[in-house]
Amino acid sequence: MSFDPETLRYNADGLLPAIAQEAETGEVLMLAWMNAAAVAQTLETGRVTYWSRSRQAFWVKGESSGHLQHLVEMRVDCDRDCLLVLVRQDGPACHTNRRVCFYTAIRDGEEVELMAPEE
Amino acid sequence: MSFDPETLRYNADGLLPAIAQEAETGEVLMLAWMNAAAVAQTLETGRVTYWSRSRQAFWVKGESSGHLQHLVEMRVDCDRDCLLVLVRQDGPACHTNRRVCFYTAIRDGEEVELMAPEE
Repeated sequence: MSFDPETLRYNADGLLPAIAQEAETGEVLMLAWMNAAAVAQTLETGRVTYWSRSRQAFWVKGESSGHLQHLVEMRVDCDRDCLLVLVRQDGPACHTNRRVCFYTAIRDGEEVELMAPEE
Repeated sequence: MSFDPETLRYNADGLLPAIAQEAETGEVLMLAWMNAAAVAQTLETGRVTYWSRSRQAFWVKGESSGHLQHLVEMRVDCDRDCLLVLVRQDGPACHTNRRVCFYTAIRDGEEVELMAPEE
């Protein structure tokens, strides 16, 4: 069946969550949001493109930092309201310069930092 | 630092997205939503508990199907508005009886089903 981004289920703001996962390692890098146009643009360009809720604008991941996400494969979930985006990540994915955004673990009720920012 | 679920950033409905990842394999299983009470209950019980937006009730994953998610570790992202939950999943995670919810890939503009329901 041919894929049409308009057939996905978006929230009231026209967005759905997209999980970025490093294709090689399986590491979950980050979660951000896409609208239908960002989904289409990601597929067309092969560069993962989100919708920035703060800036209300397209956000080509890494466009300013150089830490691009190259699309390996996009996957849709059973409810068609969430995406899993397999990527090849250039440099750290997180704006804190850490490899991933999920660098804080909860262990025995305490917050534990798992990784430091890269140099 | 001691962890308090109330310090996370929830949306207007008091929810944040939680990504469930199989701890052993790194496979991303599903995405669902938690409120502060579901976060606390997940940590207390070790059974991953979401908030069902359709039923407006706690949803102990697998409570009716037996396909429980046993908490291995909860992680918080840099913006504190998303969780990554590492789990040990009993049986298939998806309500379609597939191992994961992200069983549809987009390849060359077509939707491709990657796995069949388990028996």
